[in-house]
Amino acid sequence: MTWQLRPEDLPDLARGAALLGTGGGGDPHIGRLMVEAAMREYGPVTVLDPDEVADDAFVVPTAMMGAPTVMVEKIPRGDEAVRALRTLETHLGRRADATMPIECGGINSMIPLVVAATAGLPVVDADGMGRAFPELQMETFGVYGVPGSPMVVSGDHGETVTIDTGPDNERMEWLARGAAIRMGGAALIAEYAMSGADVKRTAIPRTLSLGLAVGRALREAREQLRDPISALTEVLAPTLYSHLRVLFAGKVADVERRTVDGFARGKARFVSFDGTSTLRTEFQNETLVAEVDGVVRCIVPDLICVLEAESGEPITTETLRYGQRVVVIGISTPEIMRTPEALAVFGPSCFGLTEEFRPVEDAVPVP
Amino acid sequence: MTWQLRPEDLPDLARGAALLGTGGGGDPHIGRLMVEAAMREYGPVTVLDPDEVADDAFVVPTAMMGAPTVMVEKIPRGDEAVRALRTLETHLGRRADATMPIECGGINSMIPLVVAATAGLPVVDADGMGRAFPELQMETFGVYGVPGSPMVVSGDHGETVTIDTGPDNERMEWLARGAAIRMGGAALIAEYAMSGADVKRTAIPRTLSLGLAVGRALREAREQLRDPISALTEVLAPTLYSHLRVLFAGKVADVERRTVDGFARGKARFVSFDGTSTLRTEFQNETLVAEVDGVVRCIVPDLICVLEAESGEPITTETLRYGQRVVVIGISTPEIMRTPEALAVFGPSCFGLTEEFRPVEDAVPVP
Repeated sequence: MTWQLRPEDLPDLARGAALLGTGGGGDPHIGRLMVEAAMREYGPVTVLDPDEVADDAFVVPTAMMGAPTVMVEKIPRGDEAVRALRTLETHLGRRADATMPIECGGINSMIPLVVAATAGLPVVDADGMGRAFPELQMETFGVYGVPGSPMVVSGDHGETVTIDTGPDNERMEWLARGAAIRMGGAALIAEYAMSGADVKRTAIPRTLSLGLAVGRALREAREQLRDPISALTEVLAPTLYSHLRVLFAGKVADVERRTVDGFARGKARFVSFDGTSTLRTEFQNETLVAEVDGVVRCIVPDLICVLEAESGEPITTETLRYGQRVVVIGISTPEIMRTPEALAVFGPSCFGLTEEFRPVEDAVPVP
Repeated sequence: MTWQLRPEDLPDLARGAALLGTGGGGDPHIGRLMVEAAMREYGPVTVLDPDEVADDAFVVPTAMMGAPTVMVEKIPRGDEAVRALRTLETHLGRRADATMPIECGGINSMIPLVVAATAGLPVVDADGMGRAFPELQMETFGVYGVPGSPMVVSGDHGETVTIDTGPDNERMEWLARGAAIRMGGAALIAEYAMSGADVKRTAIPRTLSLGLAVGRALREAREQLRDPISALTEVLAPTLYSHLRVLFAGKVADVERRTVDGFARGKARFVSFDGTSTLRTEFQNETLVAEVDGVVRCIVPDLICVLEAESGEPITTETLRYGQRVVVIGISTPEIMRTPEALAVFGPSCFGLTEEFRPVEDAVPVP
């Protein structure tokens, strides 16, 4: 089903995208302001269901890359992502029929909407991470055979860097990260250009709709004074993200965070309200692992989301601070993200973690 | 005059290029072996005098970039520079009629010959540095209005990075340096694509011939047991590099050298044979300044060359070591490199030096 995304949908989408960002992905509220400005100038955005994209359509995903700690301070000037798209079109000798997120969490739910509004293109309701991940090779697109390059990195002085590493998406990430660092720590990109047939085969479907539904459920729960966790559980149950588990409730006791090698890396420690239990998390932009009293309860690629205890509002890694009262939840990822091929690209070992992946619905019993 | 460069010319050219490298530019002997291999496979290389290049010819210079300390250990696999050329041709939609050095000192006297032999192109007898400089914006091409980008950086895994910074050659250097660092500290490039008319207007003419003549003069002086310095003085007198001054004779007392930010940076100290006089030099890949007993005697862009005292063999910065017996000379650069516009791009202040440029022929009286 084709539908129109309107400016009044954006606050809900931003809230849902912050949750799917699992702490990373960049602050979607900055992106929301960019989309609002673009929609004011160019009108609403048409969203295409992936099933409706023609097999021979040419889809060029767009995104922002960089450390979220940098992205909250270095706001794009606005035309970088469209320039990335246009430069890649010229390089490949073909105009895009649509754009698409590579990542449905954080600011990257919004960047393709800026491009869509500005360039007059529809956006496909799908992505390649099904959440947020810190590196460009961590895409179901690549897992299932779509090369990420040629890709374009675009900076805020009008400069572009076109990278071609053939089928080697890790080398693409390495070179693009270097360019983004030299552009000030964040940049806009166009990559993983593919056919409509490849979208259907390799993308996680309907993750823009999912973000919107999640954000709306959290807002309505707050308006209706309902428990946000049960509202979330209900909205996720019929989706590909069907299991939700509460991992922990308590206060932030300690955050250790550095911007290094172009990433926000660090650890956080949480203590339960009664002081008897401890949660430790580690993150590289996104939260990677949640360990309660020494036992891993949720691990990448399953989602670990930190929410404000009262409001259910998602908290990103760069805004986590001492004393915040939080609920931490785990959410199961779609099966396409849990295959051996997928875990080889974005499973625990890809982040230097020694623990094996274990589905959150197995690691945490139903309460 | 069009002429053929033969394999037997290469040892002399390498020696002359090492001198014009002013301590940097990368070891030309590695490049020489690459050219010999390419000539064995494809035959000799045709050298075009710049006056003979058609105004509407399309010339694409090629080179290596990186820290010389890395370049002596990380030898190119051989096809990177041709790939850089081909990728830039595709990007610009035009085939090259010739290649050209961007730098006549060090390994970059040789890289365009590898490309010329392999791709079956002539090479233009000219360059944009008239010596070696450490950074890509330090080109008379750019000083006189030819943009360096779009340019291509090519690595040894077949990867390419195409950089477009419009007219901003400093930003091009910044992004290309970042790519070269991520490619292992050295990479091959194609840049400053220009017309034959621009070659005539902006290049330093006949610097390949100059390197060959300098290297031959040093060899013949050694064979004839003549003083290498007077042989050099004679061969340079009728060229654009007409003044030669002996700055110092003595031994290497101390070398402080680090590979940092993609460059070889450091200082050296020399003591005269009788122990009464001291020479201090500073370098960023190339030697930048020579101060004898506290007085600057030669400064960039004039050439400072360290030669073995007995043989006159040029010594590069990365092979400078304690106890070497040396003669250090200064050589004047062509007037096109001493204009205010040129000094604004590669004069002393561009390297953080506080001293003003003073021509070596004024700073050191005729003996």
